[in-house]
Amino acid sequence: MTIRVGVAGATGYAGVELIRLLTLHPEVEVVLAGTESYQGQRLAEVYPHLAGRADLVGQEATPEALAACDVVFTSLPHGLTMGLAQAVLAAGRRLIDLGADFRLRDVAVYEQWYRKAHTAPDLMAEAVYGLPELYRGQIRGARLVGNPGCYPTACALAAAPLLKAGVVESSGIIFDAKSGVSGAGRGVSLGVHFSEVNENFKAYNIAGTHRHTPEIEQTLTDLAGEPVVVSFTPHLVPMTRGIMATGYFTLKADRTTEQLVDLFREFYAGEPFVRVRPAGELPTTKQVWGSNYCDIGLRVDPRTGRVLVISVIDNLVKGAAGQAVQNMNLLFGLPETAGLQHTGPVYP
Amino acid sequence: MTIRVGVAGATGYAGVELIRLLTLHPEVEVVLAGTESYQGQRLAEVYPHLAGRADLVGQEATPEALAACDVVFTSLPHGLTMGLAQAVLAAGRRLIDLGADFRLRDVAVYEQWYRKAHTAPDLMAEAVYGLPELYRGQIRGARLVGNPGCYPTACALAAAPLLKAGVVESSGIIFDAKSGVSGAGRGVSLGVHFSEVNENFKAYNIAGTHRHTPEIEQTLTDLAGEPVVVSFTPHLVPMTRGIMATGYFTLKADRTTEQLVDLFREFYAGEPFVRVRPAGELPTTKQVWGSNYCDIGLRVDPRTGRVLVISVIDNLVKGAAGQAVQNMNLLFGLPETAGLQHTGPVYP
Amino acid sequence: MTIRVGVAGATGYAGVELIRLLTLHPEVEVVLAGTESYQGQRLAEVYPHLAGRADLVGQEATPEALAACDVVFTSLPHGLTMGLAQAVLAAGRRLIDLGADFRLRDVAVYEQWYRKAHTAPDLMAEAVYGLPELYRGQIRGARLVGNPGCYPTACALAAAPLLKAGVVESSGIIFDAKSGVSGAGRGVSLGVHFSEVNENFKAYNIAGTHRHTPEIEQTLTDLAGEPVVVSFTPHLVPMTRGIMATGYFTLKADRTTEQLVDLFREFYAGEPFVRVRPAGELPTTKQVWGSNYCDIGLRVDPRTGRVLVISVIDNLVKGAAGQAVQNMNLLFGLPETAGLQHTGPVYP
Amino acid sequence: MTIRVGVAGATGYAGVELIRLLTLHPEVEVVLAGTESYQGQRLAEVYPHLAGRADLVGQEATPEALAACDVVFTSLPHGLTMGLAQAVLAAGRRLIDLGADFRLRDVAVYEQWYRKAHTAPDLMAEAVYGLPELYRGQIRGARLVGNPGCYPTACALAAAPLLKAGVVESSGIIFDAKSGVSGAGRGVSLGVHFSEVNENFKAYNIAGTHRHTPEIEQTLTDLAGEPVVVSFTPHLVPMTRGIMATGYFTLKADRTTEQLVDLFREFYAGEPFVRVRPAGELPTTKQVWGSNYCDIGLRVDPRTGRVLVISVIDNLVKGAAGQAVQNMNLLFGLPETAGLQHTGPVYP
Repeated sequence: MTIRVGVAGATGYAGVELIRLLTLHPEVEVVLAGTESYQGQRLAEVYPHLAGRADLVGQEATPEALAACDVVFTSLPHGLTMGLAQAVLAAGRRLIDLGADFRLRDVAVYEQWYRKAHTAPDLMAEAVYGLPELYRGQIRGARLVGNPGCYPTACALAAAPLLKAGVVESSGIIFDAKSGVSGAGRGVSLGVHFSEVNENFKAYNIAGTHRHTPEIEQTLTDLAGEPVVVSFTPHLVPMTRGIMATGYFTLKADRTTEQLVDLFREFYAGEPFVRVRPAGELPTTKQVWGSNYCDIGLRVDPRTGRVLVISVIDNLVKGAAGQAVQNMNLLFGLPETAGLQHTGPVYP
Repeated sequence: MTIRVGVAGATGYAGVELIRLLTLHPEVEVVLAGTESYQGQRLAEVYPHLAGRADLVGQEATPEALAACDVVFTSLPHGLTMGLAQAVLAAGRRLIDLGADFRLRDVAVYEQWYRKAHTAPDLMAEAVYGLPELYRGQIRGARLVGNPGCYPTACALAAAPLLKAGVVESSGIIFDAKSGVSGAGRGVSLGVHFSEVNENFKAYNIAGTHRHTPEIEQTLTDLAGEPVVVSFTPHLVPMTRGIMATGYFTLKADRTTEQLVDLFREFYAGEPFVRVRPAGELPTTKQVWGSNYCDIGLRVDPRTGRVLVISVIDNLVKGAAGQAVQNMNLLFGLPETAGLQHTGPVYP
Repeated sequence: MTIRVGVAGATGYAGVELIRLLTLHPEVEVVLAGTESYQGQRLAEVYPHLAGRADLVGQEATPEALAACDVVFTSLPHGLTMGLAQAVLAAGRRLIDLGADFRLRDVAVYEQWYRKAHTAPDLMAEAVYGLPELYRGQIRGARLVGNPGCYPTACALAAAPLLKAGVVESSGIIFDAKSGVSGAGRGVSLGVHFSEVNENFKAYNIAGTHRHTPEIEQTLTDLAGEPVVVSFTPHLVPMTRGIMATGYFTLKADRTTEQLVDLFREFYAGEPFVRVRPAGELPTTKQVWGSNYCDIGLRVDPRTGRVLVISVIDNLVKGAAGQAVQNMNLLFGLPETAGLQHTGPVYP
Repeated sequence: MTIRVGVAGATGYAGVELIRLLTLHPEVEVVLAGTESYQGQRLAEVYPHLAGRADLVGQEATPEALAACDVVFTSLPHGLTMGLAQAVLAAGRRLIDLGADFRLRDVAVYEQWYRKAHTAPDLMAEAVYGLPELYRGQIRGARLVGNPGCYPTACALAAAPLLKAGVVESSGIIFDAKSGVSGAGRGVSLGVHFSEVNENFKAYNIAGTHRHTPEIEQTLTDLAGEPVVVSFTPHLVPMTRGIMATGYFTLKADRTTEQLVDLFREFYAGEPFVRVRPAGELPTTKQVWGSNYCDIGLRVDPRTGRVLVISVIDNLVKGAAGQAVQNMNLLFGLPETAGLQHTGPVYP
């Protein structure tokens, strides 16, 4: 079986990473590389690293063309996928949205944070949140997957074992998060100008203003079984790839680092893409660079009664394209690791 | 008047930054550049950027040689300054220690965190903590100054107006801090190998294990007037210079960002080296690069009842050598900004 | 005496570096900060590192406003200064152009390389090339200075002693040059996107197509006393500041490295901003970072009969704003180093 | 068939990259991970990115243990492989040396440049230079392969079509080369300290003093059919991976860029790992990052009668471990691309 795949938004950074991963996938043929800016151009002209690897020409990603694919990945600015999704699903195809249109379940929350009316609330209700480690069962039967944001992936995987086991308070949670620049996409602006980013470190959209906040809270609320409000603080690191979430949780009762490492190991036992570090070790972003792994380390602070959890991902892989392929594998009953085994990490 | 200055540890990164600043200082002559590794060598050979600027030869920093200087700066591993200090003070000279031997007041705390007996507890009691914005009065008359650590400088200046005004809880404070690599010094190790640091981000000494923790707590306890315990979490950023402290504080009552910005502006009114950003803006590390500034921005998060404070410094200047010069200026009755006006920031 | 200075193009990278240097200059007051994009805005809003240092508001740089200044610096895209220059000089003021309009003497060469008609050929004839180490005498009496390009500064200073002494062939000269990203200016484009530049190295405008080629050749022709054609090959380094020119010259007769180092030292004796490394040492870009220095090292290759000369500058200082201030000092009979002593290098 | 592989020097950067590639290779089992420093430790402890991918424990790489493997890769400081090679070959096994002991054919040249006696001159004579694009036929039947240096790979592939076709002079050739820091290996020193390398650019071992010079000349002499002496000038780029060689060649007669691009395309037709850019385009190092590709672009400079050739590789892959796997594939009659298809490039 070969899955015929269409990608809308194939020339952004998440899109081209999808192309890299899909061309390595043994069961996939990319039949449509949709692009706004480079229609008619060979992808290898736009991205010379693809020369000899992906013989694709950029096309317009019309609803009709997408609806002819077995599965569609959309990597578009929020608001643009709503319409496409209806056409694709109506044709009996499946869609995995790397954008923000189908991550949140509550239309009001979407409209409050994204300041845009949602035109497909029924699909929003149907969509499954594509974080396989937490929602695998629902993803398997889904037609429409909202692929998680990069920060929410790192935060949710750091929090899940603790909240599920009820060993930490669900209030007062903080995620101090740090991201490489590729998370901002390929669009040009002063904010991604090398001379402004290099040898610089900055915070942005702090104090509950970043759009990933409600997405993180939605998952943590699921995990805790009660409403969770978090402090989420993103920062920009002078590097291209990588996200670290530094999570602060208040322990309900004394626990040792070793006990909690065991808790995490049990929770993620059998997960192909989550690696829990032994007590005394912490992961760094480069250790997952180019791969679909999420690495997690933690340490209890007995002085403050908190446990700190450090999780790292490659924002373009587990935080975007790799997780989307993982979801596709689930949708099509393939081994979850298909096409994702060879992609990294590359170190140093 | 020319102040005759000796530097012990002139060839480490903080030491050589001292040399840069002192050679720009109108009232100073460096008469002793002490070094362990480069005795008899011209400093401009070891650091060619100094060619034509500092015609100094590395010497052994014996207690006798140091005691002949008007003021001594020590930038040595902890434990090495204790002995030197006694000789220098006995000769009627002054000493500013950029190391850790005279920052803490409590001998037991020092010995617990630095795992070393302190051999000059009387001097420890006498020493003044050299953070001019908070301890200016005491510094003026001091013989011995413990120059603050880099992280504690950024954290204390972020916290001071809030704790002093009593608008935040003194419990539950978190400093999620990020530093450039030069903070680790010039010593070679795998941890500072370019290929390990570049395109990488890591946390280290988290959960109350970093030695700057008790130093931060000592100052915050002074400010709050009651014992303060903090979560301090350092991270390493792939850049050379710069520290950001992201502080999390719980508000006792509702405040707006604007109100708190005003509070900070009043608190730091007249301070030559603290710049408070207007509401809506946050500082980045590069905006203070090469300078003695501490820039501060903040934002209230009404969803969580917290205020986030972002402070940035250049770890080698306000976090080490620049602050030491500022302290020297206070000791000698010079304008506090003498020799520090021309040093930066350099941008981009 | 206070020189009243106007800057047209004060918010580009070269312009804002000028502002940094001019505010440190003891004899200067900046009375006009001209800007296209930020009129009516405080410069410290656009560039927060200037807060507390330069209390300037962006204005329109009209010919009339500029003509009211004692001296005008223009840092504008080529073609825009021609007209302004006429107004400024007609008012009896002086102008230093950091752009390309007055560097070349031959109108035809200008029009060939810049593909634009030159509307002030008489001023082009009058203008002096502002490389003080080579044209100091002419600069002193000038009204109009064409401030050299960044690459040409590094290349000319590397070549001058050799060509002047006639020890190398004037044919076959190669400059393989490398620049940090700030040389491309503050404008946004994919070419300066952090994710494209970081962990990447590229060549551009090679094989005699870069506009600095005729400027380099003009100076080398002056030095050699016969027409010189060079290979000039620029590359982009993933760093913000710094240029290195690696020059290849064919020796006419055997020389040792030591002999040629002596030649360079004699040639540059007394020069405040050129530092020649001893035989066996080579300069790196960071050793001049933030400063007006040009550092030079060289080595003879007896196997090939060539001498390699390595010169480094900070492209924004000696390659732009610093050299412009040096030229202003010459125009106004000030010490050549005025305002340039405190600006760097900053290391590490 | 599974090839049982031993690696001596598995924990250096080239060694661990070998481990990454070999664990992705469908026909290989790594049975021995030799290491000096980490014997008895799990490789995934030393290099956490390998967790879950390579379940290997560091061992002593004794001659006996190596001689039990089907093929041995040695990635050791020069001088250490000579002895091992004799034991391995005597046992009827094959050896691919990533070090310098078997690259040069002439014992005298080796001893002059490496200042060490060569104790296996007979094996040196037998060894084949492992640059498949130029010596594929000889590699196929070899027992002992000297895997090329990183710089020589980039230089030889840039020069080969020109010299083989005789369109350029064999004299006066220059390679101005630039490398990322990982080429210096994992050993710690001030030269690889992040604070010394970051935001810095330097030249080193210039003017015919780098040990890769005779290796480049050996291959170019083969290609030209007459003795070739080159100028080879290495530089250090503040990045982890990547080499660019900028080659300067004097044309014997006029050629257009298009003609020479055609020449290169014909020369490298069918080569799986060489990609020639169309006229008007040049490769950047990141476009081959993590992969075994060598990308080449060129441009004729009619003003100087030269052609400039730009070649880029990943120094740890095509410049070391990837090329070694390519050689192994040739030795064992496997498809030359086996195990190398999935390794990159990763962009951005």
